[in-house]
Amino acid sequence: MFNKILIANRGEIALRIIRACRDLGIKTLAVYSDVDERSLHVQLADEAICIGSGPSTESYLRMDRIISAAEIGDVDAIHPGYGFLAENPHFAEICANCNIKFIGPKAATLKKMGDKAMARFHARKAGVPVVPGSDGIVESEKEALRISHQIGYPVVIKAVAGGGGRGMRIAHNDVSLVQGFVAARLEAEKAFGDGSIYIEKLIEDPRHVEFQIIADTKGKIFHVGERDCSIQRRNQKLIEESPSPIVDPILRKKMGKTSIRLAESIDYEGVGTIEYLVDRSGNFYFIEMNCRIQVEHPVTEEVYGIDLVKEQILIAAGYPLGKEWEELEPKKHAIEFRINAEDGLQGFRPCAGKVDFLHFPGGPGIRIDSHLYQGIEISPYYDSLLVKLIATGNSREEAIIRMRRALDEIMIEGIKTTIPIGKSVFQNSDFKRGEYTTNLINKILAAKKSLDEI
Amino acid sequence: MFNKILIANRGEIALRIIRACRDLGIKTLAVYSDVDERSLHVQLADEAICIGSGPSTESYLRMDRIISAAEIGDVDAIHPGYGFLAENPHFAEICANCNIKFIGPKAATLKKMGDKAMARFHARKAGVPVVPGSDGIVESEKEALRISHQIGYPVVIKAVAGGGGRGMRIAHNDVSLVQGFVAARLEAEKAFGDGSIYIEKLIEDPRHVEFQIIADTKGKIFHVGERDCSIQRRNQKLIEESPSPIVDPILRKKMGKTSIRLAESIDYEGVGTIEYLVDRSGNFYFIEMNCRIQVEHPVTEEVYGIDLVKEQILIAAGYPLGKEWEELEPKKHAIEFRINAEDGLQGFRPCAGKVDFLHFPGGPGIRIDSHLYQGIEISPYYDSLLVKLIATGNSREEAIIRMRRALDEIMIEGIKTTIPIGKSVFQNSDFKRGEYTTNLINKILAAKKSLDEI
Repeated sequence: MFNKILIANRGEIALRIIRACRDLGIKTLAVYSDVDERSLHVQLADEAICIGSGPSTESYLRMDRIISAAEIGDVDAIHPGYGFLAENPHFAEICANCNIKFIGPKAATLKKMGDKAMARFHARKAGVPVVPGSDGIVESEKEALRISHQIGYPVVIKAVAGGGGRGMRIAHNDVSLVQGFVAARLEAEKAFGDGSIYIEKLIEDPRHVEFQIIADTKGKIFHVGERDCSIQRRNQKLIEESPSPIVDPILRKKMGKTSIRLAESIDYEGVGTIEYLVDRSGNFYFIEMNCRIQVEHPVTEEVYGIDLVKEQILIAAGYPLGKEWEELEPKKHAIEFRINAEDGLQGFRPCAGKVDFLHFPGGPGIRIDSHLYQGIEISPYYDSLLVKLIATGNSREEAIIRMRRALDEIMIEGIKTTIPIGKSVFQNSDFKRGEYTTNLINKILAAKKSLDEI
Repeated sequence: MFNKILIANRGEIALRIIRACRDLGIKTLAVYSDVDERSLHVQLADEAICIGSGPSTESYLRMDRIISAAEIGDVDAIHPGYGFLAENPHFAEICANCNIKFIGPKAATLKKMGDKAMARFHARKAGVPVVPGSDGIVESEKEALRISHQIGYPVVIKAVAGGGGRGMRIAHNDVSLVQGFVAARLEAEKAFGDGSIYIEKLIEDPRHVEFQIIADTKGKIFHVGERDCSIQRRNQKLIEESPSPIVDPILRKKMGKTSIRLAESIDYEGVGTIEYLVDRSGNFYFIEMNCRIQVEHPVTEEVYGIDLVKEQILIAAGYPLGKEWEELEPKKHAIEFRINAEDGLQGFRPCAGKVDFLHFPGGPGIRIDSHLYQGIEISPYYDSLLVKLIATGNSREEAIIRMRRALDEIMIEGIKTTIPIGKSVFQNSDFKRGEYTTNLINKILAAKKSLDEI
């Protein structure tokens, strides 16, 4: 087993990894930027090393400084969390070269799934249905037009290096296609340093359903059910639940098998997530694989009674997965709501500020994963996630009731948050019936904006 | 269903009741003393009425003012929580006379179990084993000597009206018996206004095991397993767990059946707890019944996936218990640790003060039931409970590991708490093996005091 792990991340996920390490008796080394000096992950880790200034490019993305910290701290392994360097094959390679275990899949696997066009290629090769579209990078406007005519409008223009909705455009006709192609390429170039574009058919009003995969280094691969992440804002997830209201045991078996087949084909190791769009007829299409722990992993943990981060570390240390993973069944229903420092009425623009008063809800069925404390200054440098509020119940109805209770109770004063929009969603009758699509928040906002209700 | 409930309590249990009411869609009316004006239960209830000044006798024990508040607030029911008026038959009768539902058993039942000598009598009548001792109140020193010679030393001298270890003495011979009898009578007279005394044989190094009972108003009674509450300080519980490490399925069935028989014999309604001492041979002896929700109810909730406070309210509203209660099995292991504002090295003397900084642990398996917030002033008027920290896992080992992690993470600055002694217990090898008795904390303190380790 590892003696000490460096946590190459910040915020709630750094805390989450510290918790898993403590449960395993492993020491932790935190790294931090100067603006994070008073963060809980710095306070709670066994050791902490400052690796630079506020902007991520000067700290959390600086591989050289992180590796130096790892060497100074004499760690056995690095846990990258999510975001930052979590899916960077180059970083995974450097770790391997320095004889430090990178807690995640092999660099070769990261390469196969890191590029969206490549990921599509590997999915098709493994017999996994993909959204109809270009088989690779679309080089020109002419080629974009040809493919769009072939698959039919509407289509989605996407950046190969993209993520979180950036470098993405929807086109309903030739004019918007050409405009969108140019705009997406520029945006992707600016955001990711890579303007490569591909095109897919738009699945209208889809559900976003993802499967949790867990694979040891001995060739055993299991799935741990699905998460429904259809409630999004700006193409980014806001609410996730498990099980999905639209996945029955038959579909779960089918999508689970497909997911395991894909993971096997790319020699997957560790925890990972395969994301699909599901249309109204129950057809599912691969969109991407996230080769790391996801923000929304707690809903799976609550429903299946497992600890995914702990397992991830155990797998990296060479422990095999036992037979009990074959028999896992969803026994509960869990929902996660992301409380972000954002203004829902201003296009979910991130807000900075100081938390003047804080009260977290408690009692039965409530789990909090958060790096917040009363007095914390929210920095504009990082993502806006403040709190993952997880409500669990014996039924979906009970989980929703507990989530509503928790949202009525929580107090975060001093900054604008997504709490008001969350309250609207959990009161919404479509949501309560489980009949929602990725468009729900836009619908709610369209109805509310004029009424000044939020 | 009730429309509005008055919560005749404060602190964490008032919050717990507000949470259950919200889950049921019931409005809440808080009552409070002036020192509790800024408490969370006042902030989070739908309405709040001040009923007097700090000392409980001037507020939370004032039946007249609570009934007035109930009438002003037009409530349907009163939830008494635990302590204060929770087991007061006179208060239950007044509520009934005012046509307000008292959420608890009938006044007649409270009378049967409120007096310890009466409770022993009813237990024996129902065929429940009791600790050998006097059959009722011991009137004189002479009678005390006669009974002690009959049952054999050591014996325990107890106040009929007692609780929490007050009015209690242990005697190993005639001299300490006579001294203890006089002292206990005086102490009981002072503390409870009733100097009645009874005598029991001392069960040496016992386990304290209690059974959770739930009974509807239609005659259905179930047990929801046991809690082991053997870890105590000053004869008061500090740590509780479910299941008990010493209760196997056969003993659980036997003690469960016995508990249901006793509850049936006194026409029990609602949730209640029957407490036993268990000796080294697995013999169990009734000690008392608590006719209310207990502080430690969350461990049962976590292990059985239920909400006892919600059920308590549903039962009071006349809802029947379904068949699913027959099939409940302990599926998890849960431990509760009471973080009190007390100084472990000063005989657990309560401490007042202000909470200057607060961080609650989170992540998998952690539940917090607490009325604390950063900036709260802890008043000397009330009991010293600050936080109920509940850790749950798939096994006892996992629950202990998570509890230790949570205690390493929690930060409550500005006041002395039981956290250091808790850390010692969860590191203790006897505790880890499940082989502990009510004497464990004294043993730990005796070993540590000289070493100045806490």
